[in-house]
Amino acid sequence: MFEQLGLIGCGLMGGSFALALKRAGLVKRVVGYSKSPSTTERARLMGVIDVEAPSALLAVSGADIVLLAIPVSATEASLKSIRHLVGRNTLVMDVGSTKCDVVEAARRVLKEHVGSFVPCHPITGKEISGVESADVDLYAGKQVIITPIERTLTAQLKKATDLWTALGCHVVKMSPQAHDAAYAAVSHLPHLVAFALVNGIIEQEQGRDYLSLAGPGFRDFTRIAASDPKMWRDILLANREELLAQSKIFQHTLQYLEELIASGDGDSLEAMIGQASDTRANWRISSHPHRK
Amino acid sequence: MFEQLGLIGCGLMGGSFALALKRAGLVKRVVGYSKSPSTTERARLMGVIDVEAPSALLAVSGADIVLLAIPVSATEASLKSIRHLVGRNTLVMDVGSTKCDVVEAARRVLKEHVGSFVPCHPITGKEISGVESADVDLYAGKQVIITPIERTLTAQLKKATDLWTALGCHVVKMSPQAHDAAYAAVSHLPHLVAFALVNGIIEQEQGRDYLSLAGPGFRDFTRIAASDPKMWRDILLANREELLAQSKIFQHTLQYLEELIASGDGDSLEAMIGQASDTRANWRISSHPHRK
Repeated sequence: MFEQLGLIGCGLMGGSFALALKRAGLVKRVVGYSKSPSTTERARLMGVIDVEAPSALLAVSGADIVLLAIPVSATEASLKSIRHLVGRNTLVMDVGSTKCDVVEAARRVLKEHVGSFVPCHPITGKEISGVESADVDLYAGKQVIITPIERTLTAQLKKATDLWTALGCHVVKMSPQAHDAAYAAVSHLPHLVAFALVNGIIEQEQGRDYLSLAGPGFRDFTRIAASDPKMWRDILLANREELLAQSKIFQHTLQYLEELIASGDGDSLEAMIGQASDTRANWRISSHPHRK
Repeated sequence: MFEQLGLIGCGLMGGSFALALKRAGLVKRVVGYSKSPSTTERARLMGVIDVEAPSALLAVSGADIVLLAIPVSATEASLKSIRHLVGRNTLVMDVGSTKCDVVEAARRVLKEHVGSFVPCHPITGKEISGVESADVDLYAGKQVIITPIERTLTAQLKKATDLWTALGCHVVKMSPQAHDAAYAAVSHLPHLVAFALVNGIIEQEQGRDYLSLAGPGFRDFTRIAASDPKMWRDILLANREELLAQSKIFQHTLQYLEELIASGDGDSLEAMIGQASDTRANWRISSHPHRK
């Protein structure tokens, strides 16, 4: 049970976390701060937070748990503004989609207190951002990747693990580097590709006409293209090396498929499609073993 | 009202069509043929067809409406096997995802009776094929693209239009060329890209581990990668020129985004993501105006 959650960023991810923590009875009071005061006010009116703070520092004042739920590029500045209040007993977590950059920012800013920071990445979200979309069930049954470093305090790591587990999440631990390599492949690249595909269509003269003809396959394939531009600009830039490496692998594979198509090699093309189809048909989202 | 539907191919698309036609009271009898006799038998046991035919010719014998619901590469051979029974009063349709190749096959085989053939492409489907997945509502509320040629008989075109409309579909007419250009962009390219992305991941040493970490964005983005390999081999090959042209446009756009990422040009990157995000957020599947 925590006394006070200092919530930095009262959007979809932060708001949903506050709601879930309250419902689980894990926190007495939520003090929230958002860059835009109107967001903070809406969060309070919606009951997502109990108290509006005019600064990140004041949100964290008196907090024993802090969540950063902001674009990853804002991590360093946010940590700077709260670092004087981060002590050995504070649990500070984030929910960013990249981890190496976040960990480096935490090392630089928190210095001897970097051990209180537990880097987290819950594998959930919606393409609609904002506190209006906050959802008490956003995290339930989902994976949460925790990427501790050698200086992370065992006590904080356990608190973070227990907390996510209590919210119904399945916690997986790995290094920040392993995290960023994996998510470059299965998340950042699909987003980049979806953006490029939509951009490539609408820049064509008949692009709008083409879009009016698109069906359910296009709908699902491009859902992630509707994601928040600032958030994804940050993610793609923060993980650029792993992402560009994955994009090269993808383009090589695409060009191999193009060659099979151009040369009319139906057997090899069918084998490649069969490999993709079998893989995808047998794949399931990993989730908490005690939930569906 | 039709007397008899001769159904060539009793899978997902054909089976769903038969069920919808029956429910709408538009046909008295459905005689079905599939390459695999066990499929035909299952279709009869499921009530999708009334009578099993041992050949395409026998399915079409006595039919005033014929539906080809087979991989597009099988169109020519199927039309050959039934052409002696295709007369001026027969309505022959297909449901293939490419239209130029299907139209050419129909011209070559049906000759003076090519006017009885109305090329159709319903914008619907599932990633699971087979008669077991047949769904009486598969076509309801969906777009159906009809691509008549100059020799198509007005009477058959009207019959086809009325029939799809009666099934709750929104009929759109265009040339086979315009169809293939549009669907290269909004369907065939997304499938090719989804196949390449999944293939590119699992060919990496840690690919399986990466997949176990993937979340809901990956799930939706790659849903179409689970599509039927034979069917999609055919489509990608049949529409190869338009598809490869679209793939080039896509790769140019992707490489432009990569340059922005590599050079750290956050503003331009955000603008491009914003364009994709706005486009996708404001896009909706076109459907019948009288339905949702």
